[in-house]
Amino acid sequence: MSATTHRLEVALNPSSIAIIGASGDPGRIGGIALDHLSRFGFRGQVFPVNPKYPELAGFRCYPDVESLPIAPDVAVLALPVEDVAPMLERCHAKGIPSAIVYAAGFAEIGGEGSSRQEALLEFSRRTGMHIIGPNCMGLAQLETRAITCFAPTFRLFPPDERKGGISLVTQSGSMCSDLYVTGWMMNMRFRHFINTGNEACVDFADYLDYLVTDQGTQIIAGYVEGLRDGPKFVAAARQMLQAGKPLVLLKAGESERGSEVTQSHTAALAGNRAVYRAAFAQLGVMQARHTVHLTDLAYLSGFPRMDSVGRKVVVASISGAMGAVTADLLSAQGLELPVLSQASQSRLMETVPGIAMVCNPVDMTGQLFSRPRLATEVLQTLLQDAAANVLLVYATGSLFERIAPELIEVAAGSSCLVTVVATSGTPETRQRLEAAGIPVFPDAARACEALGTAARRAENLRRASRWHALREAEDAHRTLAGSAPLCADEHQVKQWLHGFGVPVGKVEAAADPGQAEAIARRLGGPVAVKILSPDIAHKTEVGGVRLNVRPAEVRDAARDMLDAVAAAQPKARLRGLLIQPMESGVGELIVGVTRDPVFGLVMTVGLGGIMTELFQDVAHRLLPVDEEMAREMLTELRSAPLLQGFRGKPAADIPAAARAIAAVSRAAMAAGPALNELEINPLLIKAKGQGAVALDALLLTTTE
Amino acid sequence: MSATTHRLEVALNPSSIAIIGASGDPGRIGGIALDHLSRFGFRGQVFPVNPKYPELAGFRCYPDVESLPIAPDVAVLALPVEDVAPMLERCHAKGIPSAIVYAAGFAEIGGEGSSRQEALLEFSRRTGMHIIGPNCMGLAQLETRAITCFAPTFRLFPPDERKGGISLVTQSGSMCSDLYVTGWMMNMRFRHFINTGNEACVDFADYLDYLVTDQGTQIIAGYVEGLRDGPKFVAAARQMLQAGKPLVLLKAGESERGSEVTQSHTAALAGNRAVYRAAFAQLGVMQARHTVHLTDLAYLSGFPRMDSVGRKVVVASISGAMGAVTADLLSAQGLELPVLSQASQSRLMETVPGIAMVCNPVDMTGQLFSRPRLATEVLQTLLQDAAANVLLVYATGSLFERIAPELIEVAAGSSCLVTVVATSGTPETRQRLEAAGIPVFPDAARACEALGTAARRAENLRRASRWHALREAEDAHRTLAGSAPLCADEHQVKQWLHGFGVPVGKVEAAADPGQAEAIARRLGGPVAVKILSPDIAHKTEVGGVRLNVRPAEVRDAARDMLDAVAAAQPKARLRGLLIQPMESGVGELIVGVTRDPVFGLVMTVGLGGIMTELFQDVAHRLLPVDEEMAREMLTELRSAPLLQGFRGKPAADIPAAARAIAAVSRAAMAAGPALNELEINPLLIKAKGQGAVALDALLLTTTE
Repeated sequence: MSATTHRLEVALNPSSIAIIGASGDPGRIGGIALDHLSRFGFRGQVFPVNPKYPELAGFRCYPDVESLPIAPDVAVLALPVEDVAPMLERCHAKGIPSAIVYAAGFAEIGGEGSSRQEALLEFSRRTGMHIIGPNCMGLAQLETRAITCFAPTFRLFPPDERKGGISLVTQSGSMCSDLYVTGWMMNMRFRHFINTGNEACVDFADYLDYLVTDQGTQIIAGYVEGLRDGPKFVAAARQMLQAGKPLVLLKAGESERGSEVTQSHTAALAGNRAVYRAAFAQLGVMQARHTVHLTDLAYLSGFPRMDSVGRKVVVASISGAMGAVTADLLSAQGLELPVLSQASQSRLMETVPGIAMVCNPVDMTGQLFSRPRLATEVLQTLLQDAAANVLLVYATGSLFERIAPELIEVAAGSSCLVTVVATSGTPETRQRLEAAGIPVFPDAARACEALGTAARRAENLRRASRWHALREAEDAHRTLAGSAPLCADEHQVKQWLHGFGVPVGKVEAAADPGQAEAIARRLGGPVAVKILSPDIAHKTEVGGVRLNVRPAEVRDAARDMLDAVAAAQPKARLRGLLIQPMESGVGELIVGVTRDPVFGLVMTVGLGGIMTELFQDVAHRLLPVDEEMAREMLTELRSAPLLQGFRGKPAADIPAAARAIAAVSRAAMAAGPALNELEINPLLIKAKGQGAVALDALLLTTTE
Repeated sequence: MSATTHRLEVALNPSSIAIIGASGDPGRIGGIALDHLSRFGFRGQVFPVNPKYPELAGFRCYPDVESLPIAPDVAVLALPVEDVAPMLERCHAKGIPSAIVYAAGFAEIGGEGSSRQEALLEFSRRTGMHIIGPNCMGLAQLETRAITCFAPTFRLFPPDERKGGISLVTQSGSMCSDLYVTGWMMNMRFRHFINTGNEACVDFADYLDYLVTDQGTQIIAGYVEGLRDGPKFVAAARQMLQAGKPLVLLKAGESERGSEVTQSHTAALAGNRAVYRAAFAQLGVMQARHTVHLTDLAYLSGFPRMDSVGRKVVVASISGAMGAVTADLLSAQGLELPVLSQASQSRLMETVPGIAMVCNPVDMTGQLFSRPRLATEVLQTLLQDAAANVLLVYATGSLFERIAPELIEVAAGSSCLVTVVATSGTPETRQRLEAAGIPVFPDAARACEALGTAARRAENLRRASRWHALREAEDAHRTLAGSAPLCADEHQVKQWLHGFGVPVGKVEAAADPGQAEAIARRLGGPVAVKILSPDIAHKTEVGGVRLNVRPAEVRDAARDMLDAVAAAQPKARLRGLLIQPMESGVGELIVGVTRDPVFGLVMTVGLGGIMTELFQDVAHRLLPVDEEMAREMLTELRSAPLLQGFRGKPAADIPAAARAIAAVSRAAMAAGPALNELEINPLLIKAKGQGAVALDALLLTTTE
């Protein structure tokens, strides 16, 4: 192996395979892989191991691992769970560098299974052996036919001479089969088929890491229930971004019920599904809604013009109805149908006498059938219009056949993605179009859903590169910054935040009621009086907040508050009072940072109150977040119009809010692992040009 | 023809057909229908009319209409637009009762086209001739092979010996073809293929009316851009409900852009798409999101257990992943996966050793492959659980084949709908399951979307019957009621509303400021003072509202108000002032009635403010609305929790709000055609048991 070979190459692209517990019965678990290797002609060496037979499936059979003539790249263990650990030791002794463990009975059953899995990991760490699974269906490298997987799928849907650039990685064997079959029937072919199983030693991100380096893999399509290592996944997604390899994922657990199911049946951390969604978008990962959507996205990703997909779609058909229906479907995906230029419209009217719809969608009319090259002229006009970055042609059977050559001709001369919806039509014509870089979808809904995801991905990709760069810069910076203050009261938290540029207003601490009054008089207007304690997270609930107190009343208010709080929370350390002038603005944000079990520090921004609690109208991002990203978060809130001058209210100072959010992000990043939760609630946003101010701040550290 | 034969029978189910302008070229518009009639063996008489030929496509050809040996049921006019009117006269003279007009150039082009269409309608009214189209593709009765349609679709996807109970009615010929092909490829067969075209004389609802009476039609699937006659559609939907024939519609124009398109390319009234959605739901019509969804719903409607579909789905597969993904998809459709009873769970654990998921979804495990009758036992346990009204089995290819007989066996003994998702599998097995009443979907997303719509329909159907009954009762009642007050000011409107039971509080009119003060003193607390005028709809904007005025200040406030309003609107008739006590509650509703151009009076209810304006969180219903329907409207608002005791607020008096809404409905129904708009804004809802009160009311009548 060369120095640059990925460590998982031996397991995922082996040139020699031992099947331990091999069977000659292609219906048994020890026989299926052997049958695959024989039936599909694996281009390497196969060593069945079973003391009962001299030969199996045409291969010489060996009585035990020790008697193998060489140490093969990978050993497939088709053995009961209790035999796994001893056999792995023997494989290691033989010098076999990797193993695939089919057996179930590990962490997924808990108890002794978890101990077994721990031991497996321990063994792998000690020996350096790469262990796939356990509780997995195996793998398939479909080009070399290293098919060690026991899915019966391959017999029904065999690999053929066509190479496929799509690799499947899934946390479920059945799902892997299902995706393989769905794609196969759409005429797609795959390179790797990877079922990760329990991921005891090699996890989802490790496979991604391998596939980035795998020359034959252009696109990765996967199914996940939960990621074991968020940061490793982030790193792999970055590599994929750099390598220009699209990643499409279907994640189970998007609903309450689905989430319960995934948690019950895998040992994976479920994490917060909203955070997953945000992370996938932020990393430029396409998240599929269901298996067919996943397959469609993998399909679309295989076309060279995929990267030119944007939100602007020009639709052409020979039916007003198809145009209207497609417009509805595109709009539902957040895509736009820009009106064509006057010049294009005029040209269409000249080209097609009596044409009715020339704006977009365009009704090309039935004249296409009778006038050769009319389609070419119309489609060229559409593609030359500045409005287009995707041309979608909706064509039924006979039209599809009729205009296919013209479509191929115009697509060749354009940098736009030309795509076709053909509800019928011959497979030959479809393949001809595909070969010319034109994806063909069987119905409009699927086409529009795939285009919608692709367009959002294109935007996300641009943002993802910026984010990775920012993250690297902040990582470098972080070592210089101080950590979070421990046992901090609101005043200390605000001072700390202020150091990072978070606006906290004219807030002052008072040791006693007299000092509180003096501060209030100096500030000169009604003030907020708040209890100052590192032990009280929810001040209002213990009578620790009084708003709109006139300076003359501050002393009494403060005294009452100290008494009330001392009575309510006798053990809380009281450090005096916090005095701040009353402020008013046009909106209030909640800005929070929490620690997600999978992805680490996550920023959440929302408008608070009903918007957050009832409509769950919040935006999430993995940290760090800079001003531009903060603005994007604010823009994607459904309640965003409330900040933009809603119903005669003044517009809010969005730039100031974004600066404050970015400053909170810097503080949280600097706080390091001690930070568990940081919440600014509310961040008051004033009218345009008047800034923002953090009225309250709470920091919870892990060491408290 | 018997007395009970529908008037459109001659056109839609003809036993003799003349093709005027017939051609022997099956590629030309006058030749396609003739070719269809010949090729597919129409079971009636065919009379090509063309002076140039003695015979066409094997049929004797006639030089003109006058020389036909009989008056056929229908004449197909394959003629240029200018020849249509004279030929219709000649057909009528010959005694032909109906005609199909292919030609375009009528209302869809405006101008002289509209005049032509007017003339056509005039002719039809005068002669009683039934005219299909114009600007239509024609019709097909696929059982008798009366295929007068010029869609080339039928040659590629020919009718066969199978009868289909589904009839297609669409406002677009291409869409009709597309739906036909999509269904055909799913092995569905159709009865009627109706392209309505411009609907000059026979409209969408007329076809529905016919299909209700058509014995061979069990299910109607349609495509609409806009309905010409809402009330006629409502009546047809009611008949369909009574006949137990499901209606599935795809409506274009669900987006802003799509709506523009449909308005530009048809002469149909677009109406308000939110009202369409509400009306369809209210009438028990299934609204499809796209063509495949439409086809899936028509497919599902063909199964006997369709009516037992509910929101509770039990999912079984042999994969945790498939269970989880399906749970996500079902949840997204608003369906539930109830947890199985302890008894069922125990039985599953006894039946399947080592089974991991027994709650729902159920992972039946790979043991199904090796243990015969295990599937039967598992599935029977699931179907016997009280939780289930739908059982969804997710099965990949080999499993599908393996358990098909067992599925058929258990489904036969159950009143639940058993449905299968099979991403692969043989067509033979699929057909065997279908014949046993088990629908088979090619992917989980499609199955879940169809089941979601079907479950909502089941609920809507129950409501629809109640609504029709209510409507009939109110229609009878209406003649007794008084009409709306014309030129009414707020006080008059409130008195009128009060007469129908709308709570309006202790509101009193004052002729002058002095009287206003006296009223306020009598009421005894702070009051609202409002200008009283039939000419001012928006009082606040002209200074015509003062809230929270103490009795002592009422006289001055009233005087200032009269001056201010007189200055702002010198022409408005001022009738004095309205005095009402200040009231407070826990929520405010907007309750509005508007006149939709298609459906007539429509009720809109929302929480007002941000909820209505920003989130469009409103519920619509065609009138009348009774208390129960009003409660349903309030429940379906996303902001409903705000009325149910949100964040420690008291719960609102929902029953009182529902009573008030129903009373508004009665008033609006009684108002009759004079009512253009009625708005209660706000309807204040007080805490539970404390009632509701209409704080403001506005009535706009058409005669003002």
